[in-house]
Amino acid sequence: MTSPQIQNMDDLATTIEQLFAARDLTALTEVLAPLPATDLVPLFERLSRKQRAVIYRLLPKDSAAEVFELLDPPLQSDLLHGLQDSEVAQLFVDLDHDDRLWLLDEVPAALATRLLRGLPEHERVLTSALLGYPQDSIGRRMSLEYVSTRAAFTVEETMRRVRERLQDAETVYTIPVLDDSRHVVGIVSLRDLLSAEGDISVAELMKDARTAEAASDAEEAARRCADLKLLAMPIVDRENRLVGMLTIDDAIRILEHEESEDAARQGGTEPLRRPYLSTPVSTLVRSRVVWLLVLAVGATLTVQVLSVFEATIEQVTVLALFVPLLIGTGGNTGNQAATTVTRALALGDVKSRDFMRVLTRELRTGGLLGLLLGTIGFTIASIAYSVEIGLVIGLTLLCVCTLAAAVGGCMPLIARAVKVDPAVFSNPFISTFVDASGLIIYFLIARAILGL
Amino acid sequence: MTSPQIQNMDDLATTIEQLFAARDLTALTEVLAPLPATDLVPLFERLSRKQRAVIYRLLPKDSAAEVFELLDPPLQSDLLHGLQDSEVAQLFVDLDHDDRLWLLDEVPAALATRLLRGLPEHERVLTSALLGYPQDSIGRRMSLEYVSTRAAFTVEETMRRVRERLQDAETVYTIPVLDDSRHVVGIVSLRDLLSAEGDISVAELMKDARTAEAASDAEEAARRCADLKLLAMPIVDRENRLVGMLTIDDAIRILEHEESEDAARQGGTEPLRRPYLSTPVSTLVRSRVVWLLVLAVGATLTVQVLSVFEATIEQVTVLALFVPLLIGTGGNTGNQAATTVTRALALGDVKSRDFMRVLTRELRTGGLLGLLLGTIGFTIASIAYSVEIGLVIGLTLLCVCTLAAAVGGCMPLIARAVKVDPAVFSNPFISTFVDASGLIIYFLIARAILGL
Repeated sequence: MTSPQIQNMDDLATTIEQLFAARDLTALTEVLAPLPATDLVPLFERLSRKQRAVIYRLLPKDSAAEVFELLDPPLQSDLLHGLQDSEVAQLFVDLDHDDRLWLLDEVPAALATRLLRGLPEHERVLTSALLGYPQDSIGRRMSLEYVSTRAAFTVEETMRRVRERLQDAETVYTIPVLDDSRHVVGIVSLRDLLSAEGDISVAELMKDARTAEAASDAEEAARRCADLKLLAMPIVDRENRLVGMLTIDDAIRILEHEESEDAARQGGTEPLRRPYLSTPVSTLVRSRVVWLLVLAVGATLTVQVLSVFEATIEQVTVLALFVPLLIGTGGNTGNQAATTVTRALALGDVKSRDFMRVLTRELRTGGLLGLLLGTIGFTIASIAYSVEIGLVIGLTLLCVCTLAAAVGGCMPLIARAVKVDPAVFSNPFISTFVDASGLIIYFLIARAILGL
Repeated sequence: MTSPQIQNMDDLATTIEQLFAARDLTALTEVLAPLPATDLVPLFERLSRKQRAVIYRLLPKDSAAEVFELLDPPLQSDLLHGLQDSEVAQLFVDLDHDDRLWLLDEVPAALATRLLRGLPEHERVLTSALLGYPQDSIGRRMSLEYVSTRAAFTVEETMRRVRERLQDAETVYTIPVLDDSRHVVGIVSLRDLLSAEGDISVAELMKDARTAEAASDAEEAARRCADLKLLAMPIVDRENRLVGMLTIDDAIRILEHEESEDAARQGGTEPLRRPYLSTPVSTLVRSRVVWLLVLAVGATLTVQVLSVFEATIEQVTVLALFVPLLIGTGGNTGNQAATTVTRALALGDVKSRDFMRVLTRELRTGGLLGLLLGTIGFTIASIAYSVEIGLVIGLTLLCVCTLAAAVGGCMPLIARAVKVDPAVFSNPFISTFVDASGLIIYFLIARAILGL
């Protein structure tokens, strides 16, 4: 645990759950009242949907609003169901434009339209502007409340603009510099403004601006903002005109969202998009069953393959003993390659056009691993059974490892190339594929060597 | 691609590699000279160790230093080998204290000591101070260049302090408020200072400070900083006295590092800790071989199990056909549970003390999935083979799925409880365990039902 606050938070969660179980709402209200929103949020993330709905109602009005702002959109959407339209409308108005969009992505279309209609005219215009950008584009995640300046302005003029917007602007520490037609010509930090004389021009202070296009992929833009260690990055249109700012906290949120998605897909489940303990079991099942069925169907392939070689197995039953070992090792080698390349793609270290480089690297890596495991497998199997069996096992391991690494390494690139989330061609998927092909290799080698 | 800059960067990489292949160093120097460091870094991440060493020498002195600062520590460490001690010492002096520690973690102990000795007295004192904190603690990652103020100070006084430190402080946007004995009593943002009258006291502006203890786990502190959307978080000692500041960009770096580690472990490999394309194949092999061997040894368990039931297989060869399907499905169910819980642990959504909650949830989830798959399996196998076989397959699926989900869900919690990285008890590990136990269940059920 990192600090006292969190310590207390843990015991607190228990207390709250007990009081809730005891239905002691008065005591609950007293316990909740003094808590800052930052402590209430992790608490809410541990409660069941029902508990959340009840406890939210017990919060003092202000902290209720604050908690709502800090919660993940799926949990926000849960809460909305329990509230009256008037309250819902108010909560929605209080959100930032970009936070509104996260929420709109969660709620049913009907409610979404109602919420938008509930907004004051100018607010609605701004939020709809964001809605105009494609799903998953950074345009939907940018902030519209920023301060900008002009190259010709002096430091003093710029500081005046900053002071005017201190209250409402989402970011004032990084200020985009524009020309007369709103093109981004540079960036100036509040730090540089403060250290400069009031009468010198922004043009003398500004640095090159790193920007992202509003229509571009949200994850890539967020990664870029984080990699460049920017507190905020200007978002521009095709003509490099400023349309908004991406703040680092939103960038982190986008990345965390993507990381969770990749992690889930890698494990062959759909992302939960909400804290584990606050997810109903039925949702857990739904997040896993589809993949599990797809993979099971894929696995019937192995049954087909084996039944083709049933005769061989009957003749040499001992061959059956190594099946799990061989396909397991193949699957692991494939997973390793797939995981490494998927991560490299996520970090932007590898691009689809690196296909050949990746293929050759993985063939060499898989080959080396196969050579090593094959030798070991040959030795052990030769001693335990016979040199023929040893040869079969050794050669199979060599081939399977090489194949698995190559397939595992290339799948993610192919996925990215055809615009599918690389993590979808994930480890279990690859294992299943490698299982079937590995078995064929195994029995063909066996037949050849054992002369069946 | 998010923007023009990156576009060019891509073509550039190709050009550079071609020029390098052609050994045309003059042309290379010309191409490199105008590039900003932010474009050079992704380029360096795509080059081989040898290419990097050569190309780095071709850079203009200034951008060389800047590039070095931005590179990942492992790549920095690579470059050092190619340079003379004097250059090395200079580069090291130019780094921030916290960046120095990232690098020190990479280089051989002998070089580390040399580097430290090369530092000017006061610098060495500061860096050694950080080195005093335990490995993986946030103390090693915090910044020592910050501005602090006192509750009694006025806004004007504070702004004066800020202006004095504008050049060297790593962060000036979040300012910790201290009492006479350096205890953190609050936090004040530069934004609030700017919007306030000069003569009012900091005490009136400051908000509660969220802090982390220097000795606490780096990942947890970083996650906390990101979750609370703080640009910087005060790091304190046991007595809540300020010892440093964690800046959001360092927090992101720590989290990205951890994400990569988890992703790798989940796939059964050791983290590469450097960009994929710049990693030698030999390193790729080393990062995978250990796990692969461990898992292969574990898999020999399945061979043992199967040889115990060899007689059964000889009697009913058809049983062998379903082995990959059954253990595959078990493995997948286990992976799904493990992935979900590991991620929940990483996000702090689940704690070790939630063991029972997780166990019951996963038992129910696994049971439901097993019931579904079992029914399907029973139906198909009954039609394809016989009702007995159908029963065996159906019941096995039910048991294996329930077991796998429970094991997969609890392993990460146990790991965390015994202070092992949960991702180490990763998917391949769980599959291997589930494979063996699944096979036992399978053949016991088979024997019972088929009366063997």
